[in-house]
Amino acid sequence: MATNSPSDDSRRHWKITVAYDGTDFYGWQVQPDRPTIQGELQAALGRITGESPLPQGAGRTDAGVHALAQVASFALQAAIPAENLVRALNRTLPSAIRILDATIAPASFHARHSAVAKTYEYRILAAGADGDRCSPFLARYVYPCPWRLDLAGMRSAAAVFVGEHDFVSFAATDPDLSLRSGVFESDPDSAGTIKTIWCSTWEQRQSEAEDLLVYRVRGNSFLHHMVRNLVGTMIDVGRGYRKAEDILAILAARSRSAAGPTAPARGLFLHSVEYPQTTPSL
Amino acid sequence: MATNSPSDDSRRHWKITVAYDGTDFYGWQVQPDRPTIQGELQAALGRITGESPLPQGAGRTDAGVHALAQVASFALQAAIPAENLVRALNRTLPSAIRILDATIAPASFHARHSAVAKTYEYRILAAGADGDRCSPFLARYVYPCPWRLDLAGMRSAAAVFVGEHDFVSFAATDPDLSLRSGVFESDPDSAGTIKTIWCSTWEQRQSEAEDLLVYRVRGNSFLHHMVRNLVGTMIDVGRGYRKAEDILAILAARSRSAAGPTAPARGLFLHSVEYPQTTPSL
Repeated sequence: MATNSPSDDSRRHWKITVAYDGTDFYGWQVQPDRPTIQGELQAALGRITGESPLPQGAGRTDAGVHALAQVASFALQAAIPAENLVRALNRTLPSAIRILDATIAPASFHARHSAVAKTYEYRILAAGADGDRCSPFLARYVYPCPWRLDLAGMRSAAAVFVGEHDFVSFAATDPDLSLRSGVFESDPDSAGTIKTIWCSTWEQRQSEAEDLLVYRVRGNSFLHHMVRNLVGTMIDVGRGYRKAEDILAILAARSRSAAGPTAPARGLFLHSVEYPQTTPSL
Repeated sequence: MATNSPSDDSRRHWKITVAYDGTDFYGWQVQPDRPTIQGELQAALGRITGESPLPQGAGRTDAGVHALAQVASFALQAAIPAENLVRALNRTLPSAIRILDATIAPASFHARHSAVAKTYEYRILAAGADGDRCSPFLARYVYPCPWRLDLAGMRSAAAVFVGEHDFVSFAATDPDLSLRSGVFESDPDSAGTIKTIWCSTWEQRQSEAEDLLVYRVRGNSFLHHMVRNLVGTMIDVGRGYRKAEDILAILAARSRSAAGPTAPARGLFLHSVEYPQTTPSL
């Protein structure tokens, strides 16, 4: 029988997968007196188990950013079965946050440090000159771009990001933000601003109701605001303000001022997080 | 040149089509110190034109109920072109309310009194026993029903409503609500609780992400809470609590207590409003 002594960690280590509509939250990271995803999860765990571990998220999403499958880790003394934990959390959390899955993980598992890849999606409503008419049922989940965009140019620009690059030109420079969450959103091992991007593509999704441009980017880790700054710069290309050929020079400049604006939070989704297939045995 | 004397109405009469996500509003009808659709429209018109007519809606949707194409009417002295009015309203209104269209109407046009048919949709997430896991991106727009539902039984029940019936068993009985908006949601000419339903069907919409049951009902007018009470009663049939054959007895009982519960607001959409094809010339 496990004991509760600090030297013998009898806690169960959990890996949960979480979806959320980030519109009404001040981002992932807990803040005093403001609703955050991390804070809501901590409070729900406290109400269910009496323990209040602070779940660690794979990506510290900003205010208004959504997640289709964020991953978080925490440890609990309570011996609650996984299915009951999922059910109890979903009955306790606001409907804007849903637990998709919960599994026991090795003690060494950390949602952010253990991650080997993350995929983000950014959704633009290609509304041409009439972005103001964006459907109220889409408005929370897309950026209704007021300009006509040249998709071919944006695809050429997106392709330049694939590979290993120093992305410091695309990192947030806000000193408060850097202080709060660090410039480096991901694991400390990959210190620095050199990141590897494996996939960077634009896809057109057309339906009766909508005409979306969806950017998908998969990489080993991302700097703070990086995806939104990549998208803002590619929108500049789509508008004709910049050329796809300028991207290499922007990367080489190693200066935030060389790149384009930060695209709005509401179009961004943390799509998925990947971990090594071979996890240590429990 | 028209004058502004009360006896000579020089105002332009407008018909606008409005979509809204009703989640964060206290319904259509203006209320002191609470956000409502009618109140937001009146305030936006005031900011744009300096005039603050109270737009009359075709359907007085309740708190949390959505609209794909609500219709409203009002009159303005301002000689603003339709395209500019749409643009200015959409730049002034919250993104949860969008003006889809604005046209000049005859002075006799009244969005509610002139309507000859309305169509509502009700969306149920057929989640079986796991309604708690409803996606946060759907949660505002569906009722995640916790029970497994027998669609065939619900279709049989829906068919019974088609035709001319006294629907008083399905009308709201809350005295405050009746006082506030009248039991009769629609035009006073069709006084009473006898309504004609032309279409009443359940459709299954399956996609990768969702498995929806969508009820569509088209009729000449609807009592307060009528669609939600029809749906709540059909859910009783779907659960096996009632039989489709009981519907005629519920109608005949002419008593709210004979019918089932009121289905939650968030699954209900005012889908569209119809007017006579031959409108009087301007």
